[in-house]
Amino acid sequence: MSNISDESTSVESLLSNVKVVLVGTTHPGNIGSVARAMKTMGIMDLVLAGPQTEINDKSYALASGARDVLENVTIVDTLQEAVADCGLVIGSSARSRTLPWPMLEPRGCGEKLLSELPNYPVAVVFGRENSGLSNDELQLCQFHVCIPANPNYSSLNLAMAVQTICYEIRMAALSNTVTPVQETYPHSAKLESFYAHLEQTLLKIGFIAKAHPGQVMTKLRRLYNRARPEDVELNILRGILTSTQQSIKEESQDKADDKS
Amino acid sequence: MSNISDESTSVESLLSNVKVVLVGTTHPGNIGSVARAMKTMGIMDLVLAGPQTEINDKSYALASGARDVLENVTIVDTLQEAVADCGLVIGSSARSRTLPWPMLEPRGCGEKLLSELPNYPVAVVFGRENSGLSNDELQLCQFHVCIPANPNYSSLNLAMAVQTICYEIRMAALSNTVTPVQETYPHSAKLESFYAHLEQTLLKIGFIAKAHPGQVMTKLRRLYNRARPEDVELNILRGILTSTQQSIKEESQDKADDKS
Repeated sequence: MSNISDESTSVESLLSNVKVVLVGTTHPGNIGSVARAMKTMGIMDLVLAGPQTEINDKSYALASGARDVLENVTIVDTLQEAVADCGLVIGSSARSRTLPWPMLEPRGCGEKLLSELPNYPVAVVFGRENSGLSNDELQLCQFHVCIPANPNYSSLNLAMAVQTICYEIRMAALSNTVTPVQETYPHSAKLESFYAHLEQTLLKIGFIAKAHPGQVMTKLRRLYNRARPEDVELNILRGILTSTQQSIKEESQDKADDKS
Repeated sequence: MSNISDESTSVESLLSNVKVVLVGTTHPGNIGSVARAMKTMGIMDLVLAGPQTEINDKSYALASGARDVLENVTIVDTLQEAVADCGLVIGSSARSRTLPWPMLEPRGCGEKLLSELPNYPVAVVFGRENSGLSNDELQLCQFHVCIPANPNYSSLNLAMAVQTICYEIRMAALSNTVTPVQETYPHSAKLESFYAHLEQTLLKIGFIAKAHPGQVMTKLRRLYNRARPEDVELNILRGILTSTQQSIKEESQDKADDKS
């Protein structure tokens, strides 16, 4: 796809590959307000990961004309499940995190999502009203997005943050200027099984200890996240891990043979 | 001012020339949510024109950390009073109005406001929750702004619209790319007294009739709005009107003298 048509039907169909994921939301009203904010920007796919409340009358009242977004909501237990099929995951975060991660502003976030959404589903993730996303959740994201708010009072309401980010996604979709990427990146579930494979291998070779894992996996996630391995590259990395584990097994086998 | 510093103090002081005007708001909660949306974007000056409700506990609850915006609110009867000192007034409007008027998208609105706010106060105006701004109110604005929402559901909540527009004003202020205009435009009260003078003159010369004014004044407002007279030009126009009225008076006097 070399050019994104600005006809409204194309825009709406393009935006059908975007999901908004809310993690651990506590107020039913916020879920409704988020649904309304999304639909006004043409984004219909809402996922609740581990919600701390149910969708109730208050949600429907605040959703107003976006009842259908609530009726078609997907509810899962964890962020990992919510984004398993996504090739790009961007998490909302405050600027000054202890975790240094590639940061985007909302405009860049809209353009980044748009450049990849012809390829696979993409997700933008919003955390709990009081505490945002946990560090583990933030590490499931390739990028973090931060709204450059007033430093003296930067606390946007959840639905306001969703409105602002969805507005920039829509603006990117309406403009013809974003060039789609050619690379195909692995979806989130594939990346996560690579990390699980990597961790398992590091345990096996004794590089990390299960009791004291330390920061090694976080640092490796940061490294690979920065590199964003493509599908073929990820296959190579997986191949190396498999070979490593086989060598250990053979060596153990050899040792066992020697002893016998 | 040739360059807008991106230091946060300069941004906040620049934004102190922006006012958000809400016309005929009916829900106290919306006033609070608007205050919060404004403050997160560094805009503190809220004006209520003819509010249909009081600021109450619900307003304060939803304002959250933006209590000070509500405490410093200005309340006036009409939009005309609210924007009397403003050199630029932009009104929020749906796209398909019967009144054709210069239209901006939110990004252009942010840039336009920023280019003029070093010169005088500027205002962005939002109408009633159900019916928006009246045609008379829209005619007090030099530009209209429309959020390019989903054509199938374009109904943003009032505070969401304020959040989106204020976000773009802040983004314009944070960028160094907007060039301030050199022209000085008359403030709204001066423009309005020109229109009053013009109408009075047209009545006197018999071009329009008080009983059946028709669309003449609306069409003239549209014309002059498109031209955006500068201060000196407005003085010339006022001078012409004064001379016209004096000529009529003299002629009436001459006729009276002839008769005597």
